[in-house]
Amino acid sequence: MVTELHRLVDAGTVGQRLPSTRALQARLGVGPVTVQRALGRLVAEGRLVTRPGSGTFIASRRTTRTGDTDWQQVALGPSPVHPSGLDQVVHLANAPGLQLGAGYLDAGLRADARLATALGRAARRPDAWASPPAAGLPELRSWFGRQLGADPEHVLITSGSQSALSATMRAILPAGHPVLFATPTYPGALAVARSAGLTPISVPCDHDGLRPDLLRDAFARTSARLLVIQPTYANPGGSVLAAHRRGEILDICRVAGAFVIEDDYARWLGFAGEQTPPPLFVDDDRGQVITIVSLTKILAPSLRVSAVIARGPVMNRIGAMRIVDDFFVSRPLQHTVIELVSGPGWAAQLRAVGTALRERASALVAAVAHELPDCAATPPLGGISMFVGLPRGVDEGATVAAAARLGVVVGPGRYYTIGEQETAHLRLSYAGIPAQDIPTAVALLARALHDRS
Amino acid sequence: MVTELHRLVDAGTVGQRLPSTRALQARLGVGPVTVQRALGRLVAEGRLVTRPGSGTFIASRRTTRTGDTDWQQVALGPSPVHPSGLDQVVHLANAPGLQLGAGYLDAGLRADARLATALGRAARRPDAWASPPAAGLPELRSWFGRQLGADPEHVLITSGSQSALSATMRAILPAGHPVLFATPTYPGALAVARSAGLTPISVPCDHDGLRPDLLRDAFARTSARLLVIQPTYANPGGSVLAAHRRGEILDICRVAGAFVIEDDYARWLGFAGEQTPPPLFVDDDRGQVITIVSLTKILAPSLRVSAVIARGPVMNRIGAMRIVDDFFVSRPLQHTVIELVSGPGWAAQLRAVGTALRERASALVAAVAHELPDCAATPPLGGISMFVGLPRGVDEGATVAAAARLGVVVGPGRYYTIGEQETAHLRLSYAGIPAQDIPTAVALLARALHDRS
Repeated sequence: MVTELHRLVDAGTVGQRLPSTRALQARLGVGPVTVQRALGRLVAEGRLVTRPGSGTFIASRRTTRTGDTDWQQVALGPSPVHPSGLDQVVHLANAPGLQLGAGYLDAGLRADARLATALGRAARRPDAWASPPAAGLPELRSWFGRQLGADPEHVLITSGSQSALSATMRAILPAGHPVLFATPTYPGALAVARSAGLTPISVPCDHDGLRPDLLRDAFARTSARLLVIQPTYANPGGSVLAAHRRGEILDICRVAGAFVIEDDYARWLGFAGEQTPPPLFVDDDRGQVITIVSLTKILAPSLRVSAVIARGPVMNRIGAMRIVDDFFVSRPLQHTVIELVSGPGWAAQLRAVGTALRERASALVAAVAHELPDCAATPPLGGISMFVGLPRGVDEGATVAAAARLGVVVGPGRYYTIGEQETAHLRLSYAGIPAQDIPTAVALLARALHDRS
Repeated sequence: MVTELHRLVDAGTVGQRLPSTRALQARLGVGPVTVQRALGRLVAEGRLVTRPGSGTFIASRRTTRTGDTDWQQVALGPSPVHPSGLDQVVHLANAPGLQLGAGYLDAGLRADARLATALGRAARRPDAWASPPAAGLPELRSWFGRQLGADPEHVLITSGSQSALSATMRAILPAGHPVLFATPTYPGALAVARSAGLTPISVPCDHDGLRPDLLRDAFARTSARLLVIQPTYANPGGSVLAAHRRGEILDICRVAGAFVIEDDYARWLGFAGEQTPPPLFVDDDRGQVITIVSLTKILAPSLRVSAVIARGPVMNRIGAMRIVDDFFVSRPLQHTVIELVSGPGWAAQLRAVGTALRERASALVAAVAHELPDCAATPPLGGISMFVGLPRGVDEGATVAAAARLGVVVGPGRYYTIGEQETAHLRLSYAGIPAQDIPTAVALLARALHDRS
């Protein structure tokens, strides 16, 4: 109906009056509500304009004159915003081609039908539209608490994990302070820190995760009071903070009087058959660790619901910042999550995702070993990506561009590191590509790598 | 079903194994899916725990030991977060009693049934869960553009207006800068500014809105580069920036090289029969004015969708900050808005709201004139509240408390001003109270005022 109306409007001229709704009903063979809805849609799109008492007319393509905005370049000054490659990462994740750069699971692993049902049920609840409590719906706080081993009172519901990282960092540190990052790390967290006027300091990891000796050094040199770490299946490398290091890392932070933000983005992204390590905060009873978990990767990018687990005065502060940032998370979205994780399909989806991630990771590790023997590559222990070291002297940007020309999308490693690196890297994600396409994608990447060198 | 299961669990003991799902079906007379869903709900609540292969057990009331968190009070340092009374304002708006402190329309003026239908339709769209474009869905950008007279390309979809104010202020100014505010103003905007390390400077209004002479002074004394103003039905006073001042205000800002944030929260909250002034940005073709409009007040607090209209390089910067803050607004929420404003009920709701606001405002103005003749009170020209000046020497906090004891909730004026004021004020809102309850509420307020003096 809307399509037919578009065709009618496209064939008409600006200023032309549409037939009456009654005539449209007759011409298009539909009822009055359908016509009204279609007309309303075209008005919303700007194609039609309604003049009460006169009728409905085809609208002119309105262009708003914009005068000289160059003065803004002087007035604006240096930008406080530091996307840190985040916009590029998003752009790459949506690019066409064989996707080794995705940030989210592909639709095949999502559960869009269950999402629709859950949202529909949430919409019909009688209390669906009133303000929820600022900390989040009790049922959802309880669920997160149960999932992670936390008291529901220590759980704050937030929007996507960007909003959780943002509220947490800005609640703890005013502008001008350093923040330690276990590297390589997630560009979105770097973007939040820099855009808040904070200075990221790199603290490298090895196969066992964050290096305690370098962490000790970093605290000594910078008087930093905050560490950001991904102990479980770090993005981009899929590494785990070794069990024997957890206590040591916490001790070093305790001595430094520092908080720890645990970015637990991969809580539900472990491989089938593997035991996902517990969150770091379970080893800490002083409220040193603030844990952020998100459901957007396992559920859907548009289901922007996450949680912050924190204890002590810092929790109040983060909650206060959350209110200032955007009050609360939409009640229907929260109810949708509750519906989804309470229903019978949740466990099945977790198993399906765990199985697919294991299969895809294996395929990727094998393909990289076979096609890119000159690249340093540690198999991920979980999560959605691996970090591959390019041979010395190879240009990362040129490799990414050459791969794109061959139809393969990969992630530039520089967004995941801070400052100068000895060698360049690529992030290869298997979140958005079927296992059977992985060998082809990596073969093309190998060609891109060798062609350009 | 969930209730029966709760009763069963309440009657049991911790660690006790529940009957099998088959037995539960038989006992409760329901099918397997119903049992599964109810079990899932109680697991989510933490009342039950499932051990695969063993069965379902009644969970212990887990309490997570929290050790000593006092170290945080030393480590945290001064808080960067400045709620500026926002949390209090929210608390008061939800307090029981005759509500003269509401921030949102009451359910009687909302359209919750239409919201449910719209969200359900949005949920069923095949593309409902994929990432939307970062700037927002084109259809929604077009609608806002058409509503306000802006090019859709100049529209950015954001979450609630708090998120829009936050992204905008932080994109334009790094911490440490002053921001001019036309006062009295909205506490949420003050909270955003202070929590971003910015310093609000008060520039008072008179009956015609912001005073140009004081604005000129303020720019001269502070080197501020940003003004925040509510030209249309300012919250709390319901005043309008007089038509003859619009150009003058923009000129003063132009000379100062300053941006203007127009907080257009009341775009759809005009009184029936009154012509709502156009947004300030239509008088500006240099992109000086950044306009923020929100649908949460006219639709529902949980439908967190707003728009920022900006032109020139500053728009790119705000868009970049938005991505860092939380990527994008959930697609189903955006689709829900499109459904709502395209449907036949939208115009009817606008009329109903405009009529109710006019009626309620009249009742409030009359009651205040009658019951509180010693209080300075300017009738609002639109919007949801008025700002009432208390007699000299009267304590605002005591008045608010006395009113609460008599069952009337009012807004403390100090949250809406900056620094010392010659007299105290109260904000009286009519958003959340039926017209017929207003005389009673004001009479009780008068009693509170006279009893305590």
